Amino acid sequence: MRIAELSRQSGVAVPTIKYYLREGLLPPGELSAPNQASYGERHLRRLRLIRALVELAKVPVAEVRKVLEAIDSPTMPLHDQIGVAHRAVTPRRELTATGATAGDSRERAVAEVNDLLARRGWTVHAGAPALATLVDTVAAFHSLGQDHLVAFLDSYAEAVERFTELEIEAVQSREGADQIAESVVIGTILGETLISSLRLLAQESTSAQRS
Amino acid sequence: MRIAELSRQSGVAVPTIKYYLREGLLPPGELSAPNQASYGERHLRRLRLIRALVELAKVPVAEVRKVLEAIDSPTMPLHDQIGVAHRAVTPRRELTATGATAGDSRERAVAEVNDLLARRGWTVHAGAPALATLVDTVAAFHSLGQDHLVAFLDSYAEAVERFTELEIEAVQSREGADQIAESVVIGTILGETLISSLRLLAQESTSAQRS
Repeated sequence: MRIAELSRQSGVAVPTIKYYLREGLLPPGELSAPNQASYGERHLRRLRLIRALVELAKVPVAEVRKVLEAIDSPTMPLHDQIGVAHRAVTPRRELTATGATAGDSRERAVAEVNDLLARRGWTVHAGAPALATLVDTVAAFHSLGQDHLVAFLDSYAEAVERFTELEIEAVQSREGADQIAESVVIGTILGETLISSLRLLAQESTSAQRS
Repeated sequence: MRIAELSRQSGVAVPTIKYYLREGLLPPGELSAPNQASYGERHLRRLRLIRALVELAKVPVAEVRKVLEAIDSPTMPLHDQIGVAHRAVTPRRELTATGATAGDSRERAVAEVNDLLARRGWTVHAGAPALATLVDTVAAFHSLGQDHLVAFLDSYAEAVERFTELEIEAVQSREGADQIAESVVIGTILGETLISSLRLLAQESTSAQRS
C-alpha cells in the first residue's frame, strides 16, 4: 500500500509516519518506482505498536526506539528485553535524597524495602530503576506523615504478584515464540496503563457509592 | 526558620522554593523584618508534598496547584477532591480513534469495558479520563493482535479492587478528619508510583528466576 493508505489504516498522520521513517522507528518501504515506496502488513503492525507506545503509554520516542530494537533482536534474552521495556516506563527522576529528615526517611525506607524483598523472595538487580522509585516512594510516605500506608506494603506486593501470574499465563497462551517478546513488551508497557486506569475507576466507583 | 533552613530541611533548592512561592503553591512566610520572611512546619510539610508530587509522581506544576487547592477546600466533598487527584495523574492523551481497524477495535473495546463495569458493579462517570484510557488500552490490545490479554480484564479488576479496599482501610485508620483529604490524595497519587514500581520488581524477579 502507499503511504496515504498506511496513514488511513493506522490512524497516524502522513508527516508523523515520515518522521518515524526518518528516525528509523519504522523500516523503509519497498521502492515500487524511483520515487514511490510501498508498505505492507508488517509496517502497519509496527506503526500501531509505535502509536500505542507513544500516544497511550507516553513513552518518549528515544525509548520507543530502544524497545523496538530489543523486540527485533532474536538473540537478546527475554529477560533483557523485559529490562528494556522496564526502563522505558520508569520515568527519569531527578529526586535526590537531601535534607535533614529526608535522609532519615530514606535510610528507613531502604531497610523496609529490603525486608519486603526478602519476605516475598523477590530477586531484583540493585540498580533496577523501579527499586529506586519504590524506596523514594516509601521515604516520601514517611516524610509526609503517611507511615500507616507503609504497613500495607505486603498486601500491595501480594496483589501485584497476581498481575505477574496473569502475565505469565497470557504469554504461555501464545503460540509463536517470535511473537513472545512483542507480547511481553506490550503487556509490560500497556499493562501499566490498564492497571492504572482500572484502579482509578475502582476508586471513583467506591467513592461515589460512599458519598 | 529562614528560607535557607527550609531548603536544607526539605531538600528543595532556594530558587525552586522561590518559584513555588511566586506560583502560589506555597503560602508566603511571615515577615519577621521588612525584607525577611520566616517559615514554619506548615511550609515544610507543604513543600515536602509539592516535591513528592512534582519529582516523584511527575505531576505537572499546574496540576499540583489544583490538587493543593482541593486539599485546602474544607467545603469540597471528598469525592470531588479525589476527582481532582485523578485528573492530575491521568496523562493528557491526544489519542483519537481514527483509521479503519482502529474504529472497529474501539467499538468492540467500548462494549467490553461497559460489560466489565456492569459485571463488577462499578459506577463511574461517563466522562472520567480513566475510562477513555481504559477503552483506548483495550482497543490497542485488539489492534496489536493481543486479544488474549483482554480475557484477563476481570482478573485484573479483581486485583485492583483489593487496592481500593487497602486504601479505604488506610484512610479509616486516620484520626483527624482535616487530614483525610491530604492522606487520600497522597495515597491516590503516590499509590500509583508504589504499585507501578512493585509490579516492575515482581516481573523482574519472576523473569530472573525463569531465565
